[in-house]
Order: sequence, then C-alpha cells, then structure tokens
Amino acid sequence: MNLLVDGGIVVSDKVIFDGAVAVEGNRIVAVGDSSELRKRFQGFERINARGCAVIPGLVNTHTHAAMTIFRGYAEDLPLFDWLNKRIWPAESTLTPKDIEVGAQLAAYESLLFGATTLNSMYFYSEDGSELHAFEKAGIRATVGHGFFEKTVESGLKITEEMARKWHGRDNGRLRVSVCPHAPYSTGPVSYKMAFELQKKLNSLYGERGKIILHTHVAESREEASVVKEAFNVDVSGGVVVYLSRLGVLSRDLVMAHTIHLTEEDVRVMKAFDVKPSLNPVSNLKLGMGVADIIKLIKDGLTVSLGTDGPASNNTLDMFETMKIVTLLVKGLHGDPTLLPSREAFKLATEYGAKALGYDDLGAIRPGYLADIVLLDLKVPHARPVHDIFAHLIYSARASDVRTVIVNGKIVVEDRKIVGVDMESFLEEVERVKESLVSRIRVS
Amino acid sequence: MNLLVDGGIVVSDKVIFDGAVAVEGNRIVAVGDSSELRKRFQGFERINARGCAVIPGLVNTHTHAAMTIFRGYAEDLPLFDWLNKRIWPAESTLTPKDIEVGAQLAAYESLLFGATTLNSMYFYSEDGSELHAFEKAGIRATVGHGFFEKTVESGLKITEEMARKWHGRDNGRLRVSVCPHAPYSTGPVSYKMAFELQKKLNSLYGERGKIILHTHVAESREEASVVKEAFNVDVSGGVVVYLSRLGVLSRDLVMAHTIHLTEEDVRVMKAFDVKPSLNPVSNLKLGMGVADIIKLIKDGLTVSLGTDGPASNNTLDMFETMKIVTLLVKGLHGDPTLLPSREAFKLATEYGAKALGYDDLGAIRPGYLADIVLLDLKVPHARPVHDIFAHLIYSARASDVRTVIVNGKIVVEDRKIVGVDMESFLEEVERVKESLVSRIRVS
Repeated sequence: MNLLVDGGIVVSDKVIFDGAVAVEGNRIVAVGDSSELRKRFQGFERINARGCAVIPGLVNTHTHAAMTIFRGYAEDLPLFDWLNKRIWPAESTLTPKDIEVGAQLAAYESLLFGATTLNSMYFYSEDGSELHAFEKAGIRATVGHGFFEKTVESGLKITEEMARKWHGRDNGRLRVSVCPHAPYSTGPVSYKMAFELQKKLNSLYGERGKIILHTHVAESREEASVVKEAFNVDVSGGVVVYLSRLGVLSRDLVMAHTIHLTEEDVRVMKAFDVKPSLNPVSNLKLGMGVADIIKLIKDGLTVSLGTDGPASNNTLDMFETMKIVTLLVKGLHGDPTLLPSREAFKLATEYGAKALGYDDLGAIRPGYLADIVLLDLKVPHARPVHDIFAHLIYSARASDVRTVIVNGKIVVEDRKIVGVDMESFLEEVERVKESLVSRIRVS
Repeated sequence: MNLLVDGGIVVSDKVIFDGAVAVEGNRIVAVGDSSELRKRFQGFERINARGCAVIPGLVNTHTHAAMTIFRGYAEDLPLFDWLNKRIWPAESTLTPKDIEVGAQLAAYESLLFGATTLNSMYFYSEDGSELHAFEKAGIRATVGHGFFEKTVESGLKITEEMARKWHGRDNGRLRVSVCPHAPYSTGPVSYKMAFELQKKLNSLYGERGKIILHTHVAESREEASVVKEAFNVDVSGGVVVYLSRLGVLSRDLVMAHTIHLTEEDVRVMKAFDVKPSLNPVSNLKLGMGVADIIKLIKDGLTVSLGTDGPASNNTLDMFETMKIVTLLVKGLHGDPTLLPSREAFKLATEYGAKALGYDDLGAIRPGYLADIVLLDLKVPHARPVHDIFAHLIYSARASDVRTVIVNGKIVVEDRKIVGVDMESFLEEVERVKESLVSRIRVS
C-alpha cells in the first residue's frame, strides 16, 4: 500500500511547515511541501497530518521487553535484592506464553508511545516467543537470547537457530542479535565464541541486515572487580579495555549502560566505533549512577538511548527518556546550553538506528524505511509552538502519538493499535500476572 | 450537586480495591467499599470509576502560569541570557489579555494532567487577569502579584486590592498570596512590608482561608553574594538565615527552589516550619542544580513540588515531576531504597496542600475538599498493576487522567475540559503568541 502523510509539520532534515511524506512499500520515496506532493502522488492513500508533527519513529536501543510483566513488582530495592529476591525467582517460573504476552504488551505500549523499534534481550526465547509477539504487533525489533557463562552452549545454539528462522523476516522488520549477558556473568571464552558466532551469522545472513552483538557493560561501579573475581582475568584499564583484549569489539556492538567507564574504555570504544546505549531512567531508579553522555558525544561516539526493562523504569516511554537525559546533562553540568533539543532528538532516532546497524532508518528522508509517527499538536500542553525541537524534547508527551507507521504499514490509528481488542488483551495480561504471582509464591 | 465516584481503586489512607467516594457540595463525605456506599448514597450522581485509580488532585506549589505563552520561546540558554535577552523583553510587552489567555491555557493543561491546584506568581495582575482565567477554568489556585524592589509600593497595593476582591472566592477555591519576588530582587524593608501585609490580610480575610507568603529562595549558587551586593545586608549563615533576621519566616511561607541552602538555613526553615517547594525539572533545565530533598525530608520539613513556569520546564506535568524527583533522589544518592513511591506521592498531594495553608486538601478523606482525579488503568503502560503507588510515580502518564473534580464540580470529563471548545481556544492561543512575537521583534 502506498501512503501520503499530508499536511503536518514534517521534522525532516529541515522542518517543513505544511509538509508531506510519500511512502511506497516500506520506504519513504519523497518528502516536501504538501501542495507539491499531493499533485505528484495522487493515487496514494492520504493520511491527514494537519495539526500534527510528523517525526521518525523513536528507536529504543536497550530493553527486556517481556519484563513488562514485572512492572511494579520489585520496588525501592537495592540492585542485588531486586535481582535475587524478586526478579530472578520470578523469572525462573516464566513460561513461553508469559514471555509472549509480556513482549506483546511491550510492543503495544511502545507503538502507542511512538517507539517503532526495540532492541530487546531476553531469555527463554528458544521458540522465539518475543519474536512471535513482535511479528504480530508489527513493531520493528532486534531480538537476542541472553546467555550467561553457564548457558553459553545452549545460548549460542538457540541464537543460531533464531537467526536462521527469524533474521530479516517480514521485509527486514525483525532481526536477531547475539547477546552475551555481561562481562561479570559471561566469561572471556564465551565472549569470543559469541563474537565468532556474530561473524558467522553475518556472513550467512548479513544480506538480510546486520547482526549486532548486544551486551550490558559497566552498569555498576563494582563491575571491573566483580569480573576479575569471577573469571580471574586482567581488567586493568577498564571493562571495555578488557573486552577489547578479547577482540570482540566492533562497530556492530551495542553496550547498554556504560556508566562507569575509564578514559581508556572510552578511547577504545571510539576506536572501534562501539555503540553505547544509555538508560538514564533505569540507572537512576536502581541507584546505579549517571553516564557521562557529554563526554561520550564530545569524544565522537554514536550515543543512543534505551529504557531498559519495564521492571526498572517502569515504562517504555522514549519521550520521557529524551527529556530526562537532556535535563540531567544540563542540570548536573550546570550548563543549560549543553545538548540542545535538536541534538537530543537524534539520540532517540538517527543514532539509535545506526546503533542497531541500520543506515536507512531514524529520519524522514527519501530512501529511508517508512517508520513514521504523527504527534498531535492540538493539545494545550503543546501550545503555543515556538520551537518544534523544544516541543519534542520537553513538552510532547508519549500519549500525543496519534498515528504510527512501521515499515510502511499503519499500526496505530487514532491512538489505537489497529486490529487489536485492547480491553480483552489487557484482561489476558492480568490473568498471566495472577498466575505468575501465584506460582512465585508457591515455589 | 452530589456525586458518587464508584468502583475504582481508591487511593485513600489505605488502598480500597472496589472503592467509592461520596461528595456533597465541595466536600468528601464518605470513602469506602463500593457496595456499601452505593446503598448509602443512592440519590447521588454516579461517576463510573471502574478500571480507574481514584486519587487526590495533584498540587503544584510553584509556577508562573501565564508563562505558558513562552513555552519553547527561550531554549538552551544560560539563566541570565534566558532572562535578559528573551524572557524580560518578551514580558515587557505582555497585555492583560495575553496573561489571561496564558493562565487559561495553564489551567487547562493542569486540569487535563490531574493537577487541581496551582500556586502561581505573576506580574501585571492588577486586574486579576490570572484570577479571571482560573475562575473560569474551575481550577483551585493561589495567586500572587510578584513585586521587585522598584515596584514594592504598587505591588503591595495591588496585592491588597486583589485580596479584598478575590480571596476566598468561589467557595474558597481562589486565594491570594503576597509575593516578594526574591531576596536578590527585593530588599529587606520590602520583605518586612510584605510580611506586615500578610499579617494584616490574614486578620482581615483569614477566615476565608490562609494568605501565604510566596517567594523564590536560593535558586542559584550565587544568590547570597548577589543579595549582599544588591542591598548591602548581612547574609552570613545563608539567605534563609538573612530572611529570618528580618522576621518574615512563618509556617505560611512557601519558598520556591531552595537548592543552595546552608545547614543553618535548613535549621531555621525547620524551626519556623517554612515550606520548601522543589522544582526539579526547571532547576535541571536551567542548570541551577538539584535540591537535597532527602535532607529536607529527614530534617522534618514539609516538602512539596512545583513545575515552575512552563518557559523553563516546558510543561505543568506533576506526574513527570514526581517521577523525576524520585529518580534523582535514588540515582544521585546511589540508593534505590530512598523516597519510596508512597512517600513521593504525598509530596505532590498532601504536603503540597499543607504548603498552601490547607488542612483539608490533598487526600481522599472524609471532610476533605473534593478535588479528585480518575486515572485510566485500562492502558498498556499501566499493566499489569503489581503496586499502585509504583504505578502512580513511575508508570502513570499525566494523559491517563480521564475525569477531574475540583471543589465538588466536574471540570474534566472523558479527557476534555467541560464546556470548552478547545480547538478554537488553541487557535486563540496561537493568535496571541503571533501578536506577542511580532511586538517583541518590533520593540
């Protein structure tokens, strides 16, 4: 189906006031003035964008989608109690059905909130249950099966099988990644095996899209010493430096968190063009600290943003994430001129897409993939509009999303997921949760 | 009109799952189980709260409501450029009409976002133009005319006149405050005169509700030295200590910001039960720093929250403010157990009400004023519900507000302001903005 998004404020490389975007198949084919494009693309189905901002879909570069099912389940706890007493016991009882429902919920929330791409790491996806959910929901996603030192063999096998079956599905909308969990939970040999698998999968399936490596790095202050303790390895220079000695760094590597880095860590990240994904909401909520985004940007890294899992956020709201990261930069450096809103917007769009190995996503640009969000401006909190980027970062609410197009298909219309009876789905979510909680209590 | 809010999760002193709230006139008369209250209050108009959380309206204890008109007008600038180059030149051209429209916009945004009470300081309210707006919009508000050293005489006169005409209007919904702007802009004698006026007005009109003093304190690191420089006064010990020496402290004093306090400042605030209003979003955005809320709470102060004006936020979203203040506490102290969500919720409700001199507002409690918000839980980002307070602080979005009652009257129904044609009002906002911008450019 061909679409003409018509009559909105189009936030492309420049801002077009009465603008339009033409979409053929899953790609943007033209961006320009409404009057002109209306003439050129007469047969296209017209989507009225009057009173809306037309923006690229937001890209969430780090989450654990299925964990929506634990939203609010483990609160106000130190990290290790959060994990050991609440999250891990709960996770141990999860069924593939729970994971699918959780991931579906995450996809709906994300789409309704204008995030069209998720980079999700989760476990138990032997049968691709997150992927099934994302396939159904119509969201763009990169999905990896996280593995630890103990589960590396099965982990690599599952990953390979997932890649074979799923990578590049639905016209490239779904991708698979390789996910060693973290340097403190996954040993040096396993990281090397993961890297080798990444190379192999890219040579096998690379023409269907990049296969990235996705891992957690430097979330806690103690990580280096925990890594050393766990695997008796040399972590001098920092955790990233240690990984670089293993030879696993590349431009196709997303490192989530990267809060506690050394100077050398940042240098090697830059040298290999590694992609840090910052998760400010989760990091604050769990008391992990604040990543120095300004340093990373100044040093030339491609920084993107994630929400982390909804058990430690507790949303998948990328608008909130953009605002909070911007506020933190200005507030903690005491300098309101840092990270202007036009730049902050790129973190959650273009740079996010680059992090996931796309060179044709994250902007409203001819030739790019058609992931487009229409944001209602006819609401009191959006008025008046003096500056559209300030609006997008500070005033827009995720709930302003009216229409969402992913890969050229309309997935949200008039603030509703197309073709889904949300009320009965949410009842199913509560049933899954009740059953889950009863199992945790029994076990 | 009598109302029965029926069938929701009522967040009262305890959480009532199938709960109800009965309202007679402008007061809550009963809170309890739905089945019981339905029998007791049969003639009451029934408001269906099924699938909703029923919470007290949020209280925003520091804003400059009319500044919505400058939302996004002055971005990414240092404070003094923000003020001198953008805000003050723009403010100098404001008409009473601009202020009324700006304040009306602020009231609508606030109500739609579940904030039922505003504490607003603004200028040029000789004819009560913010008050006219708030009267029309149906929001609860305390309004003061801010004055500087140069305008103290007219300021006090205007305040007195405003109090005579407006204080306690509409069944106590509107109140007037006395607003010396800040210690660096308003001198010691003026503060004393303001305090005397507060006493006088309380003795004249106190039975219609408390008249508070509302001022900015310790927003910037340099404030003490600027005060000393400007007025040649003794600021040893801190800015609050200086104000205490003037004899103007009391429990009926709201101090906005209070970021840069000395130990002695906090001690005298506690001694007089002064009410700090923290504005974390604005403070971060302008690079002013972060108030140490945990210290203030531990020292026994009644801390409340404000958004500040929408030119430095850029919203009036108190849900966002609750989340950000909680995240900052946990993240910057590195301790996720601090400020649990049940406590954080009080900052924006009960403690906010206390700060504004109410002892019967900010909770769903029999005898309390009927400011009630119904929050939709039938949305993906609210599910599942494991913990209602975690939901309110972390997952709820301001846009979940479905119904709002202020002083016993329904002002928001089905996410719309009752009786307002929003589309044409927002067109008026854009016209006011256009005219304003053209006048600034010319001047």
